[in-house]
Amino acid sequence: MNRTRKHPAGAKGSAGRSTDKEAAQSAPKALRIIPLGGMGEIGKNMFAVEYEDEILLIDGGLAFPDADMLGVDILVPKIDYVVENAARVKGWVLTHGHEDHIGGIPYMLKLLPKIPMYGAKLTLGLLRGKFEEFKLKESDADLREISTDERIKISKYFTVDFFRMTHSIPDNSGLIIHTPLGRVVHSGDFKLDYNPADGKTSHLHKLAQAGQEGVLALISDSTNAERPGYTPSERDVMNGFEQLVKDAKGRVIVTTFASHIHRLQNFIRVAERYDRRVIVEGRSMVKNTRIAQELGYLETKHPLASPDDLAELADDKILFLCTGSQGQPMAALSRLAAGTHKKISLKPGDTVILSSNPIPGNEEAVGRVINQLYARGVNVFYPPTYRVHASGHASQEELKLILDLTRPKFFIPWHGEVRHQLNHQKLAAGMATPPLKSVIAENGDILELTRNDLKKVGQVDAGVLYIDAVGKSSEEITEPIIRDRQTLSSEGVVVIMALAGRNPSVEVITRGVSQNHRELNSEIEKIALENLKRGVREKRTLSDIRDDIFYPVRRYLRKTTGRNPLIVPTVIEG
Amino acid sequence: MNRTRKHPAGAKGSAGRSTDKEAAQSAPKALRIIPLGGMGEIGKNMFAVEYEDEILLIDGGLAFPDADMLGVDILVPKIDYVVENAARVKGWVLTHGHEDHIGGIPYMLKLLPKIPMYGAKLTLGLLRGKFEEFKLKESDADLREISTDERIKISKYFTVDFFRMTHSIPDNSGLIIHTPLGRVVHSGDFKLDYNPADGKTSHLHKLAQAGQEGVLALISDSTNAERPGYTPSERDVMNGFEQLVKDAKGRVIVTTFASHIHRLQNFIRVAERYDRRVIVEGRSMVKNTRIAQELGYLETKHPLASPDDLAELADDKILFLCTGSQGQPMAALSRLAAGTHKKISLKPGDTVILSSNPIPGNEEAVGRVINQLYARGVNVFYPPTYRVHASGHASQEELKLILDLTRPKFFIPWHGEVRHQLNHQKLAAGMATPPLKSVIAENGDILELTRNDLKKVGQVDAGVLYIDAVGKSSEEITEPIIRDRQTLSSEGVVVIMALAGRNPSVEVITRGVSQNHRELNSEIEKIALENLKRGVREKRTLSDIRDDIFYPVRRYLRKTTGRNPLIVPTVIEG
Repeated sequence: MNRTRKHPAGAKGSAGRSTDKEAAQSAPKALRIIPLGGMGEIGKNMFAVEYEDEILLIDGGLAFPDADMLGVDILVPKIDYVVENAARVKGWVLTHGHEDHIGGIPYMLKLLPKIPMYGAKLTLGLLRGKFEEFKLKESDADLREISTDERIKISKYFTVDFFRMTHSIPDNSGLIIHTPLGRVVHSGDFKLDYNPADGKTSHLHKLAQAGQEGVLALISDSTNAERPGYTPSERDVMNGFEQLVKDAKGRVIVTTFASHIHRLQNFIRVAERYDRRVIVEGRSMVKNTRIAQELGYLETKHPLASPDDLAELADDKILFLCTGSQGQPMAALSRLAAGTHKKISLKPGDTVILSSNPIPGNEEAVGRVINQLYARGVNVFYPPTYRVHASGHASQEELKLILDLTRPKFFIPWHGEVRHQLNHQKLAAGMATPPLKSVIAENGDILELTRNDLKKVGQVDAGVLYIDAVGKSSEEITEPIIRDRQTLSSEGVVVIMALAGRNPSVEVITRGVSQNHRELNSEIEKIALENLKRGVREKRTLSDIRDDIFYPVRRYLRKTTGRNPLIVPTVIEG
Repeated sequence: MNRTRKHPAGAKGSAGRSTDKEAAQSAPKALRIIPLGGMGEIGKNMFAVEYEDEILLIDGGLAFPDADMLGVDILVPKIDYVVENAARVKGWVLTHGHEDHIGGIPYMLKLLPKIPMYGAKLTLGLLRGKFEEFKLKESDADLREISTDERIKISKYFTVDFFRMTHSIPDNSGLIIHTPLGRVVHSGDFKLDYNPADGKTSHLHKLAQAGQEGVLALISDSTNAERPGYTPSERDVMNGFEQLVKDAKGRVIVTTFASHIHRLQNFIRVAERYDRRVIVEGRSMVKNTRIAQELGYLETKHPLASPDDLAELADDKILFLCTGSQGQPMAALSRLAAGTHKKISLKPGDTVILSSNPIPGNEEAVGRVINQLYARGVNVFYPPTYRVHASGHASQEELKLILDLTRPKFFIPWHGEVRHQLNHQKLAAGMATPPLKSVIAENGDILELTRNDLKKVGQVDAGVLYIDAVGKSSEEITEPIIRDRQTLSSEGVVVIMALAGRNPSVEVITRGVSQNHRELNSEIEKIALENLKRGVREKRTLSDIRDDIFYPVRRYLRKTTGRNPLIVPTVIEG
């Protein structure tokens, strides 16, 4: 290893490209990198990169809620900072079409003026696929298709070299961002698959060249930074899958992520090899395969079918691709497992393959589906016992390769919870040529990058919007509402209606509290009526009487029954 | 392998022991094995074993609720069948002191007459430890201490040979139940640890002898039936732990299951080897170590301390044992991670070791704690990267050994979800001398066992009680209440108070529904008032008016806002 090539970026002079010379002359001005999502979490990825009066946006993802965010459908980054500085935004580049990179964009488009948005064909196709649900028109956005290999001059200060990286979706890119201060490399989501379904491997050459010429900072995917070794290839998954299909006597039902077009392509190839027709089931699976086919990302000998088409086929001539790999209760596989699917019934002899791992938080749901499948007498196969899934993210040896090829002066571990970021940082520190400095960023941090330093200099107002009732009101909800729901969920609700006036009376309704509700209600009624009568007698205000009722009832419930339900008293003039 | 020794049990004559001769003469009568919990699940283990007019009970555990059983604290088996047949119950044997084997007993004692209950010293000690919380007295139970090696004649038909099996708690036994029809072997929970902390290995000799003499049926632990190979020894865990303690410069904080006395013993030994004083923190850890010490299951050079005692000690002289291995929000480790512990603050240089894996459903909570620990700059170690935990349950090779030693005629895979039971069944079917038949049982199944057959012949009314507010009202709650809570949790509640009479009026309160509640409320109010007025005009009954309000409001909410909250309308005469 040539130690004299150490950190050629930045101060040593080879930083800017010729296109950046003009801007570079007024250096040293700082570049600002502001993660608006995707730091300290896996989900809702988004960056703003800023130099002088220009902002470049990267991605705009969504995240899924934790179990205690009750009733919340999705989370999207709070982009107040971008909205306030919208006039300075010169371009928006998309690395790939996964929900955690583009799923937030429909919400954001409504808040922002039209910004030139650059993405590869499939990425834009999947984004357009969301427009209808959100009542957006093509003209609401300025979509510009690029190849995964293109150089785009975004603005005076920013030029972006896209470079292909293999991942669990086609048309996935990393970015070399040429700035007046030097190159910032953004790995994109990636694993290094030497045998991807389409034969198109990662453009390591471009990364190597950037490393040779000097990389000021590397932003890299930390998802699997705790995992030693290499992530297996999609080829390995196909081989594991083929073995099972070869041995299957009856129907084969397989589930995986609906956007995992490469894997679906491999599964379809195996189906064709064993003379099985492919039936696609489940809304997102139907939608994604349709988009992928229309755009040329999925080749099939026969048209993909629906369950209605192929009723006459023998069991060993059928392969289902279906949704439900995360145990989502309404998805095709969950319905099959529960015996509530309208068109298909599982039977002994069927083979079900889960080509996926549960995302943290979904273990219970997936476990339930697996048990139901076993109970139906079908043959069930899933990882780790069977090699029918591989992560889309790089393990430690791959991460080290990227660190070695780019040899960044500064390092920003991204796309991970704190545990992943810190372990990635540790990996980087252990390299033969470690970065001079690395920073564990949080969402909203303003990271200031000069040729000589990378540091946090402040915070923008970043955060998260909780979105409820997606597709209907798609309304933002707030933490007080979630807190109410948390109380309601574990303790139920006590409604007390008090009628003030000449004949004071009280009615009590409890829901979700206790099954001895008659006894409980009559006790609450007694306490409430007593306090209501005294309040009326003493001519207290309705709002005071409300408190007179609330506190004694709460005390009674806590002390006597150990319960702490939501108490909703109302006092009205009768 | 001597194939001529195949299935010596049952019809071939060596079935009963001399003590059973009298009963055996009236054979072939059937033995009934009725699992009341622990089948198709990991939790709330309990069996009733029945012959003629005698019943033998085994264990009485609790289970923890799934995430969707909102507000439920614990689950216990429904024992109506046992209560109805209480007069026939001759004895109750306990295999060990884990919650899923004894945690339900305090509830059951209140429903049953005194039954001779046999358990080893620590098992009874842990059971007694619950009495106070449940306001039970020693005289409420008939506890009889046995060794893990004892033979107990329970009644005319039942004699039980306890035999020690290694597991994640001391004083753990399997059972050889001698019946008029032959031997039924119950493995107990087990792994085969050749280096347990107390040096007392499993009594495989007794199992081998039973196999030699003939085993009619085997009931065996299926928890890890999907896991190939062997489960590591506690010795391996201790070695992994010691390596980390040796390298630690600051304080060491370790969490594991509070009942895992063997592991705690090993950790204390390591602490003493490195001259660290042991501080115990967290209610259940303090309680269990106290009981274990009093009964002689935990040896320490110095008394175990509390955080107050040792304020003056240097950081590298301290080792904390604390609760919170499952990310329980109120436990010591979670408070330390969140920075809300009253007495101890973590600091960079501290070492935190999680000697545990998350139980399914707890992954998110444990993940959150781990991230918080990283964010505090402490060194965090957990499996699988570090060998600081091993399961207490046998993997496939150990399960096969038990199957081979006992060579049961009939096999009942137990202590597992369906997936584990079926994989255990598959393992058994693959043995050189497979069982003649095996049955996948569910809770409540009546399994009838003769010398020649094992089959399901019916069902008793078994099921589950949901217990809420443990330690306060400890009240049973029912599914309708849980369903109300599920609606409340994701959708909130709309309360509509309608005042009928001369001046009809409506008041609407929403909680947990939407943040635009003013707008929403006024729309609901409008709909409700309109229908109330019409109802009053048309002199409809209050209950009819209630429906007149309920349905249009529900329709409005569903259609216009996509929401489906719990709607609670009340109409009162003003």
